[in-house]
Amino acid sequence: MTDFSKAALIVIDVQKAIDAPHHADEGPRNHPQAEARIARLLTIWRDGGRPIFHVRHDSTFEASSYRPGQAGNTFKDEVAPLSSERVLPKTTNSAFIGTDLERLLRDAGIGSLVIVGVATNNSVEATVRMAGNLGFETYLVEDCCFTFARRDYEGRLRTAEEVQAMSLANLDGEYCTVINSARLVADD
Amino acid sequence: MTDFSKAALIVIDVQKAIDAPHHADEGPRNHPQAEARIARLLTIWRDGGRPIFHVRHDSTFEASSYRPGQAGNTFKDEVAPLSSERVLPKTTNSAFIGTDLERLLRDAGIGSLVIVGVATNNSVEATVRMAGNLGFETYLVEDCCFTFARRDYEGRLRTAEEVQAMSLANLDGEYCTVINSARLVADD
Repeated sequence: MTDFSKAALIVIDVQKAIDAPHHADEGPRNHPQAEARIARLLTIWRDGGRPIFHVRHDSTFEASSYRPGQAGNTFKDEVAPLSSERVLPKTTNSAFIGTDLERLLRDAGIGSLVIVGVATNNSVEATVRMAGNLGFETYLVEDCCFTFARRDYEGRLRTAEEVQAMSLANLDGEYCTVINSARLVADD
Repeated sequence: MTDFSKAALIVIDVQKAIDAPHHADEGPRNHPQAEARIARLLTIWRDGGRPIFHVRHDSTFEASSYRPGQAGNTFKDEVAPLSSERVLPKTTNSAFIGTDLERLLRDAGIGSLVIVGVATNNSVEATVRMAGNLGFETYLVEDCCFTFARRDYEGRLRTAEEVQAMSLANLDGEYCTVINSARLVADD
């Protein structure tokens, strides 16, 4: 059993903009229940008084629905932060770049991280790779993440589930431990 | 045409240990000519007096052939640094973590990077993601990188070419620009 009682929960980029139809141009997302499962983890973390960090993507691109001031920049209702909870804005993919995340974690003596959010192979993966390389004991909750279908560099269409499965294979055991939320709750 | 005349060439983990048979347990590597193509780029960079950084993985695991003192820790002959060239040892995947790479680049006023090496979806990808997020204009030379076949998280076997194609799709246009060496040499 893993001890998550001191771990920080880091929720990455679960904002309304992710529902914009263009993300699914090559095919639908996976894990439609991810937001509900994240909400369940948030409840556990809140009930336990454990540290929570909400990471928000504040795009600097004029046309982006993630730009501050746009409706898409807002957190999705199911996972919205409480007013007492810390929100970390970022402008790149990794939650560790251009933010105080590493310093806040070190200052609080937090050594282990539970990471959830979107997109698995983009901001989540960039953050998980850095978390592991920075020496944090890092857990990625696979069914609390999602992505979309996309073509690989040779033009082959991959479903969201295939894209996520390759991302998880690259991460698991090298940068983090991949778990699922049922296992996390059972171990907790 | 892109101007590579001020770009740093960063060669990642092209060490003898990569030839250990276990890397190919699930299937062979791609781009068998990668080392020769990297050597060609090194010649161009040396002839032009441009900055070169050789990144070496110094594993901290007792059993690893990348551990300092092991034969595998040595750079492959085709891409061995000159004695005047800078070698950056690292102990994690990203060449930016636990090294002076970012500071050295900033101090030298270097804003653009040409990245090559191995493995595409591991240390190369971790480094490219950080390079882009740190604001460097980053080029990844796809035919100067290679990887190996592997199973995705659901157990599906993917060839090295498939693993690399998914990695490049995640990186291109988001963290870097993917190019090939013929194009780079033609533009140069």
